[in-house]
Amino acid sequence: MSLLDVAYGRAPADTIITNGTLVNVLTGEVYPAEVGISGTRIAAVGPALERGPRTRIIDAKGGYLVPGLIDGHLHIECSKLSVTSFADLVVPFGTTSVVSGLDQILVVEGLPGVRRFLDESKRTGMRIWWGAPAKAPYTVPESTVGHTFGPAEHREAHQWPECVGIWETVQEMVEHGDPAVMEALELAEAHRLPVFGCAPLSDARRIGGLAAAGIRLDHESYSHEEMLEKLRQGIYAIIRESSVAHFLEENIQVVAKAGARRVAFCTDDVHAADVLAGGHVDKMIRMAVKAGVDPVTAIQMATVNCAEMYRIDHLVGSIAPGRYADVLIVDSLEDFRVREVVAAGSLVARDGSMITPTVPPSRGEVAPFPVRELTADDLALRAPEGASSVTVLTLGFTEQVFVRKRRDVTLPVTGGLVEPSVADDALLVTVVERYGKTGNMPVAMVSGMGLREGAIATSAAPDDNNIICVGASRADMALAVNEVVRLGGGQVVVVDGEVRESLPLPVGGIVSDLPAAEMAVREQRLDDLARELGCALPSPLMYLFFLSITAIPDYAVTDLGLVDCVKLEIVDPFVEA
Amino acid sequence: MSLLDVAYGRAPADTIITNGTLVNVLTGEVYPAEVGISGTRIAAVGPALERGPRTRIIDAKGGYLVPGLIDGHLHIECSKLSVTSFADLVVPFGTTSVVSGLDQILVVEGLPGVRRFLDESKRTGMRIWWGAPAKAPYTVPESTVGHTFGPAEHREAHQWPECVGIWETVQEMVEHGDPAVMEALELAEAHRLPVFGCAPLSDARRIGGLAAAGIRLDHESYSHEEMLEKLRQGIYAIIRESSVAHFLEENIQVVAKAGARRVAFCTDDVHAADVLAGGHVDKMIRMAVKAGVDPVTAIQMATVNCAEMYRIDHLVGSIAPGRYADVLIVDSLEDFRVREVVAAGSLVARDGSMITPTVPPSRGEVAPFPVRELTADDLALRAPEGASSVTVLTLGFTEQVFVRKRRDVTLPVTGGLVEPSVADDALLVTVVERYGKTGNMPVAMVSGMGLREGAIATSAAPDDNNIICVGASRADMALAVNEVVRLGGGQVVVVDGEVRESLPLPVGGIVSDLPAAEMAVREQRLDDLARELGCALPSPLMYLFFLSITAIPDYAVTDLGLVDCVKLEIVDPFVEA
Repeated sequence: MSLLDVAYGRAPADTIITNGTLVNVLTGEVYPAEVGISGTRIAAVGPALERGPRTRIIDAKGGYLVPGLIDGHLHIECSKLSVTSFADLVVPFGTTSVVSGLDQILVVEGLPGVRRFLDESKRTGMRIWWGAPAKAPYTVPESTVGHTFGPAEHREAHQWPECVGIWETVQEMVEHGDPAVMEALELAEAHRLPVFGCAPLSDARRIGGLAAAGIRLDHESYSHEEMLEKLRQGIYAIIRESSVAHFLEENIQVVAKAGARRVAFCTDDVHAADVLAGGHVDKMIRMAVKAGVDPVTAIQMATVNCAEMYRIDHLVGSIAPGRYADVLIVDSLEDFRVREVVAAGSLVARDGSMITPTVPPSRGEVAPFPVRELTADDLALRAPEGASSVTVLTLGFTEQVFVRKRRDVTLPVTGGLVEPSVADDALLVTVVERYGKTGNMPVAMVSGMGLREGAIATSAAPDDNNIICVGASRADMALAVNEVVRLGGGQVVVVDGEVRESLPLPVGGIVSDLPAAEMAVREQRLDDLARELGCALPSPLMYLFFLSITAIPDYAVTDLGLVDCVKLEIVDPFVEA
Repeated sequence: MSLLDVAYGRAPADTIITNGTLVNVLTGEVYPAEVGISGTRIAAVGPALERGPRTRIIDAKGGYLVPGLIDGHLHIECSKLSVTSFADLVVPFGTTSVVSGLDQILVVEGLPGVRRFLDESKRTGMRIWWGAPAKAPYTVPESTVGHTFGPAEHREAHQWPECVGIWETVQEMVEHGDPAVMEALELAEAHRLPVFGCAPLSDARRIGGLAAAGIRLDHESYSHEEMLEKLRQGIYAIIRESSVAHFLEENIQVVAKAGARRVAFCTDDVHAADVLAGGHVDKMIRMAVKAGVDPVTAIQMATVNCAEMYRIDHLVGSIAPGRYADVLIVDSLEDFRVREVVAAGSLVARDGSMITPTVPPSRGEVAPFPVRELTADDLALRAPEGASSVTVLTLGFTEQVFVRKRRDVTLPVTGGLVEPSVADDALLVTVVERYGKTGNMPVAMVSGMGLREGAIATSAAPDDNNIICVGASRADMALAVNEVVRLGGGQVVVVDGEVRESLPLPVGGIVSDLPAAEMAVREQRLDDLARELGCALPSPLMYLFFLSITAIPDYAVTDLGLVDCVKLEIVDPFVEA
């Protein structure tokens, strides 16, 4: 009852933010007001609140008071930062809420892993609103993961107060009526939870199908016309500006046609270096203002609009009684730079840094993955019996971001094996199942990676987070995989039998408690080294990272083998003559 | 899967509305479009939908297509019309959804009665979105009802798909922390249900208290400044224009200051005659437009804005796939008159009338109330022992709508009794407990009712729906009550030992299946007769009807006796000398 006691004036506020100008995103007004806080919540907003003898005062020094920003769709683990490190990265930029599926820790550790990440977030200034993934893994055919996630797990997860809906319901799953996903949608309706879509490049008919299925929102519009069609058909739209997918400039044009009311912002996947250099959701506000959007409207897009579409507007997204006391102090609405951050009632960040870095939870000892030590022989690509040369269907990187096309390469067979050929741009790739379930480690070939020697490997690798390794040398590949296994997760670059660079990812084999600034340096070193080895891709480790995702056309590799992502089936790497 | 089959173009629509101009309340745009329907839902909205051989065509003949209107807060039973009759009254005016607490049938028949009313609505063109009353009865102290409603019943009711939140959470219940109500609010949070407030004449502090307690919306603003303060503090606002409380002209001014986004419409309590003469929610659109609101904005207030605040926007409030196919055809947006109504996919009304009146469910035989036959002696007001005259605290009607003030009258005692005195403007009033539980029938006195002879009685009487009777003659009062009992519910006027007019209310003793037009005539006759007997109140039976509501200042009468509505306690009608 303490919150109500303060609200009704029966007890003084714990903290009052004074000397600020309120940006009231609920009415669009901007006027002077004080914010009274009780515990973690806002208890009162008014012109002059009563102080008690122990009331703490935060002096906004004439700044604007803005609700904490919300990232409407974010894969935290894609940053390879732990929840703690990621929070300390984005909170100083004003992001106090993120909507996330935690889909990587989910496949690694199941619901207990998600629970730990959610609990971890409570130590930070960043609140996680969790969407339970529509299903996991997303790979088709389903690759081997530590934990799958289906209707039975939905039933349990929906009871968690942090669960705010169904995460990343892919258009195809709805159109083709994936039974597990359709059951999850029914459960969501019974539990009054919204469903979040994932429908890139959809035409009007498919958008209508999604809307008919009850998909409430989507973050995947490649043009503002596509976004307008979604809005018209009743799907809330989230503009994405990730480290690799830059859509704000294009999509913000929808505001002039349909208003901003049902439009929000998200960053989806971001790298530490990009956030440190340019900001996070605050950057999107600046970009929107630069594109001609009224600053208060842009702030609404980053706050209350997002909260409404996720039905969490009673808890975040505005500065009003009952909401969490997540309040930013900002000196200019046009050049939106966050000076100070109050999260859950406490001043936690100032001038771009955490006042006190968050201490991560103790992690316990890191165990190696339950994978036996590999040798070069384990990674041999064996040709069909009796062949002296073969044509290999290689998975070929293209100039389109992440897209992999078929590229056929004819190679000699030596001693029954097909060896990688730098000259022919045909390297070996393997995905080593790392949960101790199948021991799968199929071998196939890739083109366009460009390594002239050595090998690179990663265990952070959605959607299944097995160990992906690409190399010009089988021995180096074996060493790279062995090193990732030994580390209990990480990314490594191996050359000439030597581990030249490694980034341990000890939390679930996917993320690290490294501070973001250090993560940025380490990522840079890994990429630089891969480039030295000949890789010309824009972001070598990121391209490796996404190699198992079967939702990216046209080919992927999982622990089941080479996947035709159009036919959604395992295919042989050898082309029939 | 039929809906998705149509949406994805795998099957033809059951019905297509063609030749219309869509008012897209989601984007604010107005453009030509067809609406494809599968069963009761909208499956597709687009420029030219495919027909199948059996697709029915509804030709909008160039009219605008507008989402079915939503009444944001309505006591259906206050109309004394059954769900069926009320639906047939308002659907032709375009109201296809109402948010209602069904709080009268709840106290009479408990959850099974609510269930029956909800099921009954499914036969009509009007959808009921049910708010489970914060508690029942609302009377303080709690008067006798057929069924109380508390946390245990909330737990069950929240599982019903029709339950969309907590109804009419009175400001005082929150401020003083009524334990049953606070528990209901906690249950609502756990069940992801919003809470609807009832906070008339609240200052900023009380509004902050409500917001802090999680009250999402409110329909009780007496000025646009009060409404603005609610909006600023995060409470959605509903403008009310009832048969007796006219607030639209005042409250609509808030739109110029805070926008319309978080503002909707409701009618709260309406009489059949008023709706027949002036319309329902459609009238509020016309009034808003007349007050200078853009027509599309006014339509948004009557549709999607309301749906969003109640978190039912995925089901109603817009014309988009997945929503119920509730579509109005309207010829002018400025002079908003509904020409045709499609409800749940069927054309049900045209030019102000139902195409086919809805057949009410069979009601079974009506039983008299379990109340023994009264005589004049039962209604004697006994003076304190030995007194020759007494000063009586009469409940005095005032010029303020429904408000009752104390008026002391000194009267002689004859044979130990205080008799009604027309000359002194002191009539008798009783509330006869009608559920067969206590047999209570306290007697007190009223002023300002004005009857020179006879008696009037009603069993439709929130919040407890016991039998209220006021009279100048104890014999006529006994007859009036006996007649209501015999009817199993109703309203009657008795003069000189004769039942001069009666309106049976056989459904729960509170409502009737009479068509609205006939109800209007019957209500008029009752009021006219009461006026003939001397009553000068604006609406005699309505004033009688509200006499047990302890939320109306300063005095009420329940089956427990005379209630001081400020101190919230039973008081003696005799004033100490």
